Amino acid sequence: MNIKQNTDKPEVILTGDRATGPLHLGHYVGSLKQRIALQENHEQTILVADMQGLTDNAHQPKKVSANILNVVADYLAVGIDPAKTTICLQSQLPALAELTMYYSNLVTISRLERNPTVKHEIQSKGFERSIPAGFLTYPISQAADITGFNASLVPVGDDQLPMLEQTNEIVRKVNSLAGHSVLQECKPLLSDESRLPSTDGKNKMSKSMGNAINLGSTEKEISAAVKSMYTDPNHLKVDDPGKVEGNVVFTYLDAFHPDKNYIHQLKAHYQRGGLGDGTTKKILEECLQDMLQPIRLRRNAFLNDKAYLVDILCKGSQISREKTSQVLFKIKDIFGLNIF
Amino acid sequence: MNIKQNTDKPEVILTGDRATGPLHLGHYVGSLKQRIALQENHEQTILVADMQGLTDNAHQPKKVSANILNVVADYLAVGIDPAKTTICLQSQLPALAELTMYYSNLVTISRLERNPTVKHEIQSKGFERSIPAGFLTYPISQAADITGFNASLVPVGDDQLPMLEQTNEIVRKVNSLAGHSVLQECKPLLSDESRLPSTDGKNKMSKSMGNAINLGSTEKEISAAVKSMYTDPNHLKVDDPGKVEGNVVFTYLDAFHPDKNYIHQLKAHYQRGGLGDGTTKKILEECLQDMLQPIRLRRNAFLNDKAYLVDILCKGSQISREKTSQVLFKIKDIFGLNIF
Repeated sequence: MNIKQNTDKPEVILTGDRATGPLHLGHYVGSLKQRIALQENHEQTILVADMQGLTDNAHQPKKVSANILNVVADYLAVGIDPAKTTICLQSQLPALAELTMYYSNLVTISRLERNPTVKHEIQSKGFERSIPAGFLTYPISQAADITGFNASLVPVGDDQLPMLEQTNEIVRKVNSLAGHSVLQECKPLLSDESRLPSTDGKNKMSKSMGNAINLGSTEKEISAAVKSMYTDPNHLKVDDPGKVEGNVVFTYLDAFHPDKNYIHQLKAHYQRGGLGDGTTKKILEECLQDMLQPIRLRRNAFLNDKAYLVDILCKGSQISREKTSQVLFKIKDIFGLNIF
Repeated sequence: MNIKQNTDKPEVILTGDRATGPLHLGHYVGSLKQRIALQENHEQTILVADMQGLTDNAHQPKKVSANILNVVADYLAVGIDPAKTTICLQSQLPALAELTMYYSNLVTISRLERNPTVKHEIQSKGFERSIPAGFLTYPISQAADITGFNASLVPVGDDQLPMLEQTNEIVRKVNSLAGHSVLQECKPLLSDESRLPSTDGKNKMSKSMGNAINLGSTEKEISAAVKSMYTDPNHLKVDDPGKVEGNVVFTYLDAFHPDKNYIHQLKAHYQRGGLGDGTTKKILEECLQDMLQPIRLRRNAFLNDKAYLVDILCKGSQISREKTSQVLFKIKDIFGLNIF
């Protein structure tokens, strides 16, 4: 963690996920573990970003909503505690849409088109000029999310740093218009953990690519995913020396196996030869089955009580509506619009 | 009027003004007169578009809010009756901002850039690529306004027809996503009156150009505006024959003088020579003074009772919040987002 724990002045943290699919081990390593730690000493809100999820999924109108409760179940299953972390739903917070409208007047189209994250995403999604307006402008909506909660700290991957720059530019414009400090700039919180590779060792993990192990994966799915995992393509016979770098099985063992010393010895054995991929995969599978079984059971139990999940989201959204409305009031004040 | 009066099925009409300045005689001829007639037989809402006003005025944060009550006073002074017409404030209707967010995912940036009205406005405002995102996307926000009220009829100038096309495209996309008819397409209501020229006969009327006669103009301002009015530049001596076409004094006399026959004779006299511009201007000034004096007095009385104006807006916005929330509910339903 890059931030001090047990500080007297806890940070206000906003984080979240687009509700476009179930969460997987990449989310666990990249953000969920961090959130479980952060909730102990900070004011943390997790935003289930359904509206942002729709910016490139509106043609599948129910895809996002079908995932909302799954994502909440994922949170609770891994140990996000709704008594410590506010979990809320973006579409339940009209102030965020209103803030987006006000901020939209402070950002030019050419500035949005220069945003490296958006540029990359437009390319990878093949949008070209047919990019939905909501997708090009989603950095503005994200700025509304961050500032709407007065967040001082935003956990991000380094590919998301341009989004925070965009947010802070808006913050500075708002403060300059107001003539005093209304919003605060946010700082990024970069994870110490490196990004977990996909099981095929090639792409970013994604449900549609079938190269991710979801937190709710069944025993069989975990087993199949580990068996198909990318290792060292030149490690043909058991006796051959094998490569550990880029070998996804070892990357996952590093990330999840509790006995680091044992993994160290295992790597040495693999490198000098005599250790088959079948054996390393068996070790990894056992480790992942042990880790994911209780998460899966909890997740299923939560999903069997949807009313409880809705209640968590509803209460979190109620708290968040109050917070975001207060920020909206301040922004409307700059424009003299708190008339009644 | 292009629509039937006293019909059994009254149209739902949405109209409005950007609150960027006081209303002038161009508004009176182009829209206010029509609204006064329409309110008798139709369900009419007038939206004071403060948020749209900010799309190209955010750098002057109080310009829009300073004009809101003036515009409401203008409405009441000319005869818009709040018992017959709902007058509401855009920034008080969060559902419109939320609808804008949902619709933004259904419209591409290139489609917005092809909008002839926006294209022209971008050129005339000199934005080029520095166009604020909120300005390029305001047709989406306007579609939210129109559909948010379920408007079937929208009074527009012909330069605004592309905005209604854009709205109806969104309507069709929404209905196609839903698989049934959720929103209705709107029809334009074009005014029979041609656009009133500015006093200098050159540009579109605007406060900043100083070429408009506002509804609240003082006696002196009216007098000065008429005296400086563009006539026939070749009509140098009283005895010379004068041109009536393009002569702003006659255009205004046509628009405002109650005695059409008298104006007909006056034109003939001017055309054959012997009638000076001083005389025609005196006739026009008297006509405008007579017409604007009671409007000015009522306007000032309303502006002396700001609490009343706020109350009108507040009540109208309350009614409108209910209407627009119902439409938002239907749109969120398409995306499965009415979770709690």
